[in-house]
Amino acid sequence: MRAVVYHGPDNKAWEEVPDPQLVDATDAIVRVDTTTICGTDLHILKGDVPAVTDGRILGHEAVGTVEEVGAAVTTVKPGDRVLVSCISACGRCRYCREAQYGQCIGGGGWILGHLIDGTQAEKVRVPFADTSTYLVPEGVSDEQVLMLADILPTGYEVGILNGQVQPGDVVAVVGAGPIGLSAIVGAQLFSPSAIVAIDLADSRLEAAKQFGATVTVNNSREDPLTAVRGLTDDLGADVAIEAVGVPDTFELCTRLIRAGGRVANIGVHGKPATLHLEELWIRNVAITTGLVDTYSTPTLLRLVASHRVDAGRFVTHHFGLEEFMDAYDVFARAGETGALKVVLSRNRG
Amino acid sequence: MRAVVYHGPDNKAWEEVPDPQLVDATDAIVRVDTTTICGTDLHILKGDVPAVTDGRILGHEAVGTVEEVGAAVTTVKPGDRVLVSCISACGRCRYCREAQYGQCIGGGGWILGHLIDGTQAEKVRVPFADTSTYLVPEGVSDEQVLMLADILPTGYEVGILNGQVQPGDVVAVVGAGPIGLSAIVGAQLFSPSAIVAIDLADSRLEAAKQFGATVTVNNSREDPLTAVRGLTDDLGADVAIEAVGVPDTFELCTRLIRAGGRVANIGVHGKPATLHLEELWIRNVAITTGLVDTYSTPTLLRLVASHRVDAGRFVTHHFGLEEFMDAYDVFARAGETGALKVVLSRNRG
Repeated sequence: MRAVVYHGPDNKAWEEVPDPQLVDATDAIVRVDTTTICGTDLHILKGDVPAVTDGRILGHEAVGTVEEVGAAVTTVKPGDRVLVSCISACGRCRYCREAQYGQCIGGGGWILGHLIDGTQAEKVRVPFADTSTYLVPEGVSDEQVLMLADILPTGYEVGILNGQVQPGDVVAVVGAGPIGLSAIVGAQLFSPSAIVAIDLADSRLEAAKQFGATVTVNNSREDPLTAVRGLTDDLGADVAIEAVGVPDTFELCTRLIRAGGRVANIGVHGKPATLHLEELWIRNVAITTGLVDTYSTPTLLRLVASHRVDAGRFVTHHFGLEEFMDAYDVFARAGETGALKVVLSRNRG
Repeated sequence: MRAVVYHGPDNKAWEEVPDPQLVDATDAIVRVDTTTICGTDLHILKGDVPAVTDGRILGHEAVGTVEEVGAAVTTVKPGDRVLVSCISACGRCRYCREAQYGQCIGGGGWILGHLIDGTQAEKVRVPFADTSTYLVPEGVSDEQVLMLADILPTGYEVGILNGQVQPGDVVAVVGAGPIGLSAIVGAQLFSPSAIVAIDLADSRLEAAKQFGATVTVNNSREDPLTAVRGLTDDLGADVAIEAVGVPDTFELCTRLIRAGGRVANIGVHGKPATLHLEELWIRNVAITTGLVDTYSTPTLLRLVASHRVDAGRFVTHHFGLEEFMDAYDVFARAGETGALKVVLSRNRG
């Protein structure tokens, strides 16, 4: 088969590789019908994730068709259409039993396209298939469901649920890329009184508006504190969601919230930030971090199936699998191309 | 009357001042029967709290007898024995209505001995008396109840409840002064599997043991990470409670916790800390800060009245009110004197 293979920083190829084989009795082999590229894949290609080594097939998001299952798999069978989640779950360790699948210590967690071969391929071996795939309901398209492999549960769990967004809240979302937009979509489920999107790029702020932000602030020319305080009797936001991953935006979030407010960090960080405890110790704040656990995936599937959440709107570009190099190029130049999520499908080219 | 008056850094006196008078209809004048000194008072005397100005009567903890009430006060009357809490609550603002009294924006919050005259005096004016005092139940002593004016609710709310201590948890408490000991007392209400006290002083660790710590670690000569990991299958503590207030101990807390763990900061900080987001972003952690709100005071009063919590054990030294300068000296030299809480009482000298 063919797959996107990582060959060290700035080096990848769509190339011939051996077909995946069942290894453990809990594995499934899934034919990839639809997959995508994540910002994390770009981080890997910059060399930011050294655990990814030469020869690794990238990708941790897919919708596909089960081809083969190991002897222990009981939930899915050949021919089933499944969502392959970015998080694999052994289902047996302490973390899995507490629904913190992202922290699985039984061999799962974020492993696809990271510690084992991933989904940017014609086929993929999915470990722990019973607890790492989801049957796709009728009536929803592959590309809608594909958004549930990572970005929608990440924005919802790590942003909205960790941030405890409540009806009436003023929610500030710092960073309006796909993850920030997912948080904006998730926030609306809790009827906030305002969603303030903050970004440096007008094009992203325009997308944020279309996704439901009620106020947009370009912080290259406007002060987001002034904007947020103007909406909150000078108190600050109830919740600030960090969806960038640099110290400045994290520290901005800690300044944007009111006393008693919450900062939910979603961003992937490579450097420490300064925590101004000399100001924050007295202000009853809560700061959370997280890798997605995907415990919300069944809920989000229901929300998509019932048209309460329109997941398809994230998709801006379509490609065939064999066009992976072009797709990477379009996604990496999102600032120019306006790409949010690019979708690659079998039998399209 | 006489009172402890602040005259700038390192300068205080037990001196004659005018008796307090009712100012607002919601005020009470309370005769101070028992009061104490807080670590925060020492911070003020170092000049760390510039909002406290020359001429201010210090103190924010007392048990006393109501002498006079304003026309609007309905809950307490002259002759009633009351706890005067460190937090005054207007009872009307958004924060008060959400039980975050410490963040009151209606004129309350931590004001006694800070923004208005305090309790280290023969009498004190208590604003918002209906919502800032608590009737003392029969059968509990003044000095037991006095511990509910600040340290017990602070350890319980800002440490244990913010840290969401659960049955079976391994709880690390960094700093075994009065606030750390309060957290140790509070943790036991939730049946943790271990309470690890961490401090640089053996005398404090001895106190921690007596208060219920199951393991003690002197981090001047032992590695607390090794100790905590040895108790937790190498995962880390479920909850780490910061009860010191310096960057090192905060950062230690963020290293002590497991993935999915919580850091509850109680310490009063004067400097920023480094938050290692490059390690923490993926670990599902929660970090909280807080000034006590005192919403738990009624609960703690019941726990003391039912002998479930022995509040009196914090008291190591007794003085008459007129011995305030001696009491400050003993408390400031806690390392030598072994002082935890010093109690000053009327009619004792």
